[in-house]
Amino acid sequence: MYRVYGDLLSGNCYKIKLLLEFLAVEHEWQHVDILAKETHSEEFLAKNANGKIPLLQINEQEFLAESNAILNYLADGTDWLPGSRLARARVLQWQFFEQYSHEPYIAVARYINKYLGLPPDRLNEYQSKQAGGHKALQVMEKQLQETDFLIGSQPTIADISLYGYTHVAHEGGFELAEYPAVHNWLAQFAEIPGYIPMTAESN
Amino acid sequence: MYRVYGDLLSGNCYKIKLLLEFLAVEHEWQHVDILAKETHSEEFLAKNANGKIPLLQINEQEFLAESNAILNYLADGTDWLPGSRLARARVLQWQFFEQYSHEPYIAVARYINKYLGLPPDRLNEYQSKQAGGHKALQVMEKQLQETDFLIGSQPTIADISLYGYTHVAHEGGFELAEYPAVHNWLAQFAEIPGYIPMTAESN
Repeated sequence: MYRVYGDLLSGNCYKIKLLLEFLAVEHEWQHVDILAKETHSEEFLAKNANGKIPLLQINEQEFLAESNAILNYLADGTDWLPGSRLARARVLQWQFFEQYSHEPYIAVARYINKYLGLPPDRLNEYQSKQAGGHKALQVMEKQLQETDFLIGSQPTIADISLYGYTHVAHEGGFELAEYPAVHNWLAQFAEIPGYIPMTAESN
Repeated sequence: MYRVYGDLLSGNCYKIKLLLEFLAVEHEWQHVDILAKETHSEEFLAKNANGKIPLLQINEQEFLAESNAILNYLADGTDWLPGSRLARARVLQWQFFEQYSHEPYIAVARYINKYLGLPPDRLNEYQSKQAGGHKALQVMEKQLQETDFLIGSQPTIADISLYGYTHVAHEGGFELAEYPAVHNWLAQFAEIPGYIPMTAESN
């Protein structure tokens, strides 16, 4: 049985939980407390030298890191990851967009606001994240005005990747009312059978 | 024939050039000048709404963005991308590591130093990139002390992704002498048939 090391209030970890629920895959969830620096312990670093969650334990020896790599692994052979070469690459395009052009703005602004309480010494950094976050939302809006989900008419792991932090973007100061197609996509996504909200309760 | 929009002095674009040369795939290279904001033109944004290079043109209608998504697309079915589910995910793990934990430190420090000439108003930012860059190099060093290439005994597109900016890390102030396994890996990589150096000449 898979074991996932994670924290359900982290969007990157929540992505993994969502796919496991959508696929109804049995798994064990091992809560890891980032703020208590549990990812920096010697024991954890032996599992993932980069000291980050989520981390998927596949068997006694094999651990897989990086939320989007884990999604690709778990979705392989399912409807959540299309089989064609171009469609798979298109999924990756959105996932790399998420990690480079979306998460560093929206997730970091949310972290500073929600978890750190927007302290004065992080205010400049918080404000510096707003333009990049809005640019990412505009890129998504443009696509979602053309297709129901990011790469077409059906949801894929690209949607899971972008849903993770987009649906809590308001906690980072991003109002989604300006992005009607993104808003509709979020509502459609939450109707997918198996969907669970982001909550600490299952941690 | 593929067309690549890129700048060979960008590590992200150089990655694509390397794989095309290793695979001896015929292609057209369309130089794009980032500093002249050519990626912000209406014509370019119609091809990639995120306004970034590299961009692969597959046919009249299809464009694919994100360097690592392009590498996965081009390498599919070749020795540069292993076929097993876990090996493919392991390649992705390193590529997402590259975009989130390596490039934002090493490539950005290099950009501030090499292209902007380390101006006083960017000095704090430059210095703030050093710790993260060294952490990334330590993670690579640990792996490369165990295996010749990042996911085993043979090079994959994961190595291309990490080679892009690691081999010019000194231009961002990172001395590689502290990382002997990384140093050896760079030397081995440059021996692969088809290898070309990062140079503006082919632009």
